[in-house]
Amino acid sequence: MAALFEHGLFAHVVVLITLFLFSPGFCVSPSSTRPNILIVFADDLGYGDLSCYGHPTSESPNIDKLAAEGLLFTQFYSANSVCSPSRAALLTARLPPRTGIWPGVFVPSSTGGLPHNETTIAALLKPLGYATTIIGKWHLGVGKNQTYLPTNYGFDSYYGIPYSHDMCPCLKCFYPGDACWDKCDTGYTNCPLYRNNTLFEQPVDLTTLSKRYSIEARNFIARNAKSGTPFFLYYSTQHTHHPQFASKDFRNTTWRGTFGDSLAELDWEVGQILEELKLQNLEENTFVFFTSDNGPSLVREVRGGNAGPLKCGKGTTYEGGHRVPAFAYWPGTIRPGKTMELAGTLDLLPTIANLVDAKLPNVTLDGFDIGPLLFQRAKSPRDTFFYFYSSASPKYGLYAIRYKQYKAHYYTQGSGTSGSKNHDKDCRPTDNPTAHDLPLLFNLDEDPSESYNLSNDPKYAAILTRINNIKKEFEAGLVWAESEVHKGHSQDVEPCCKPGCTPFPTCCTCT
Amino acid sequence: MAALFEHGLFAHVVVLITLFLFSPGFCVSPSSTRPNILIVFADDLGYGDLSCYGHPTSESPNIDKLAAEGLLFTQFYSANSVCSPSRAALLTARLPPRTGIWPGVFVPSSTGGLPHNETTIAALLKPLGYATTIIGKWHLGVGKNQTYLPTNYGFDSYYGIPYSHDMCPCLKCFYPGDACWDKCDTGYTNCPLYRNNTLFEQPVDLTTLSKRYSIEARNFIARNAKSGTPFFLYYSTQHTHHPQFASKDFRNTTWRGTFGDSLAELDWEVGQILEELKLQNLEENTFVFFTSDNGPSLVREVRGGNAGPLKCGKGTTYEGGHRVPAFAYWPGTIRPGKTMELAGTLDLLPTIANLVDAKLPNVTLDGFDIGPLLFQRAKSPRDTFFYFYSSASPKYGLYAIRYKQYKAHYYTQGSGTSGSKNHDKDCRPTDNPTAHDLPLLFNLDEDPSESYNLSNDPKYAAILTRINNIKKEFEAGLVWAESEVHKGHSQDVEPCCKPGCTPFPTCCTCT
Repeated sequence: MAALFEHGLFAHVVVLITLFLFSPGFCVSPSSTRPNILIVFADDLGYGDLSCYGHPTSESPNIDKLAAEGLLFTQFYSANSVCSPSRAALLTARLPPRTGIWPGVFVPSSTGGLPHNETTIAALLKPLGYATTIIGKWHLGVGKNQTYLPTNYGFDSYYGIPYSHDMCPCLKCFYPGDACWDKCDTGYTNCPLYRNNTLFEQPVDLTTLSKRYSIEARNFIARNAKSGTPFFLYYSTQHTHHPQFASKDFRNTTWRGTFGDSLAELDWEVGQILEELKLQNLEENTFVFFTSDNGPSLVREVRGGNAGPLKCGKGTTYEGGHRVPAFAYWPGTIRPGKTMELAGTLDLLPTIANLVDAKLPNVTLDGFDIGPLLFQRAKSPRDTFFYFYSSASPKYGLYAIRYKQYKAHYYTQGSGTSGSKNHDKDCRPTDNPTAHDLPLLFNLDEDPSESYNLSNDPKYAAILTRINNIKKEFEAGLVWAESEVHKGHSQDVEPCCKPGCTPFPTCCTCT
Repeated sequence: MAALFEHGLFAHVVVLITLFLFSPGFCVSPSSTRPNILIVFADDLGYGDLSCYGHPTSESPNIDKLAAEGLLFTQFYSANSVCSPSRAALLTARLPPRTGIWPGVFVPSSTGGLPHNETTIAALLKPLGYATTIIGKWHLGVGKNQTYLPTNYGFDSYYGIPYSHDMCPCLKCFYPGDACWDKCDTGYTNCPLYRNNTLFEQPVDLTTLSKRYSIEARNFIARNAKSGTPFFLYYSTQHTHHPQFASKDFRNTTWRGTFGDSLAELDWEVGQILEELKLQNLEENTFVFFTSDNGPSLVREVRGGNAGPLKCGKGTTYEGGHRVPAFAYWPGTIRPGKTMELAGTLDLLPTIANLVDAKLPNVTLDGFDIGPLLFQRAKSPRDTFFYFYSSASPKYGLYAIRYKQYKAHYYTQGSGTSGSKNHDKDCRPTDNPTAHDLPLLFNLDEDPSESYNLSNDPKYAAILTRINNIKKEFEAGLVWAESEVHKGHSQDVEPCCKPGCTPFPTCCTCT
């Protein structure tokens, strides 16, 4: 739509849209300074996994309805292609090297976690009187005495599994009688479920988890609606990550099989939350944002999601790893439509801060306030995106940069999570990255699949020089924080509901 | 949506939908027995090329609006992955071996064409009082004395280029001052534009062609509206085939560049036609079907379109070659939505025949009446699809079969039109097909990208046996008609507005 305006072609269309834009139904800026904030963060849901992004056999009527009635992004980026660094960036608006969430992800025995001096969206909102909660996956550390759990970062409460639910034996994934996947990590303690800092169920029963998560969410919304408290709900669903699970109501119900069943349950969760918002008459005072932490885990094959037209998936700095489905929903405030403007999870904190008039943390932020794009359909303030590999390190640093429609790859590397048998060999894992002295250059607007390298064409020399300069400038301002992932491992920090029990880890069992 | 019913999950949704289905706004069967028929056939437009099929930077507001207000298919097949056989099948409901439109496509010097005893949709409708016309690309032969042009097959009139507009020197592709592509065929006569059997412009001016096509279409609609004559309009646009062209109003107007400009002009054409239907108050009495002749011509790189999540493109029997965007639009008669049911261009003739109560031709048809799917959202009568290669021949025969969600490949072969540098080597051209004694087997509902072969898993042995039996049965009933493409070549049949002139072919020039 933005482009329609630019092209200046359809005068009558423009007039119609202008009338629509200024009609009483759509404000040009939010009317309340204390809207509720709801972020739904899907897990390993790829760019091509939703029907509204073109998947031929996906069904997610609740999500699709929100997307259709919201502003859908076609060029929206997660800050990293794997879980922990992506999640840290969502909450802090800072790239992984700055927060120390590198290389890769935390495991149950990790002794590190999100540094306590980082300011999350929750910490930003809490002083303004917001009730704040996270339901679902955290994946920013557990640590000794639960020092890295969410209540240490501005969240009033927490209910969920603190990491990926395949980082523990897959014991209770499916409804009794259904087969369970056999590829989860068996060396760790059973999957823990926490309320705040208390581990109360181990192993967690995944077959009833989504129902419990959604009840928690509905109760949280209802409680705050009753007391008139503005709230921040970070709904960090376990779907559609491996091992894909589904409760009795959703197993074997979809065309897409196991992945489809997991997506159907996610869709149901979204429906439940929206139903509660509607019931409490809060829809028009809640900023809803839906997106995913990274691209599809292609190594899981048919259960691993789909990147649509994008190259490779999870773990890589190709578009399939980073570009994710995303939409904003706010009836009466955000006009329905699609935007091709650049934006990303890094932009949520600055946008929310401006929306609620919160003070930004006094650190380097990598995000922009995209309020004008959301509310007035202005151009995005973002014209760059910086890609760090899933296993980022100062040795190789930045792998790629997007500047406007152009993306330059300085290093490329496949990933185990994108599949060792991928038809596109670029996606397959290698020990080291491939360096490109003359960077690969793609025009993503014309070539979203990163198929046709332009850098040998002298016509693009000026663009490459521009991007090289952006790189130098960015790197000059980048300080790599100490790695939290390298802080090491200890059985002592592994969640166990019976501390000190034997035989470890199987003895850590409570219902 | 169909699947929602099947799963029986969302009782309240089902009730709502049922109410909607039987509300006064939507009939359960068409109210008129003489509706107008409008087929818009795009050229080389891939499964992933439209915004409504997930392309991140495509813009086609008119097409997307029709799709949103119509019934969009996610599993719709063109009958072949290249032009001539696909177009013959659309018009006759017969697979290419039966009509003799094999191997490959006609060129300007081809002496063969669509056999005169084949019955087209136009020939079916004409005896019922329909006005019939084709505007645009024909590509089923020209022949001596224009014996293979459309007016010999039930069309009252013809206005267009009788083959692909790259089968001639690319002289007038772009608005003056813009670069013209240099990869058209220069050995043939200049691109001809016909009215009926008369060649009146050579070379055709592509920069004004879309405007002229749309004026022709609007005039045809207006004329028949005035006289109260039901009509069949086969609008066979030249967009988005190579060389992508665009008039002054559309060049350099889109995010996607040259391909995007071509698509924008196609979108404008669709908008023009629909505007005329609305103006003549015919929208509710016209069955509109939009689809494409085959997948994207990936060899054209950034100008070559996109197959979305599907494997390979034009010229191959992978999904990217055959599965195409498609939707039916008929306000008040076809309820808006999406369907994952199987259907294809082969089904249009039987569906239209039943709709208008026409007698089916007394030959083997490969299509089904999908009226119940369109109008009552019933299950599709189609549960198989037979894939013949672009250069089909009795030597190799059938390459693949889809049965329900399963697709078995007996032969696979890439294609020059899918690109010799394709990242997926399966898509690259080879001299001969690869035979699969144990067919490759994919579950397309779970794996639309044909990535994960199932045939080594004994669990699928029964499915393979079933498909092998379907193959035997199908082949027992298949008679290969004599090849029209092999009938040879002659300069004598090449369109020339100055017959006998020298130096041939450049002398064939008239304005």
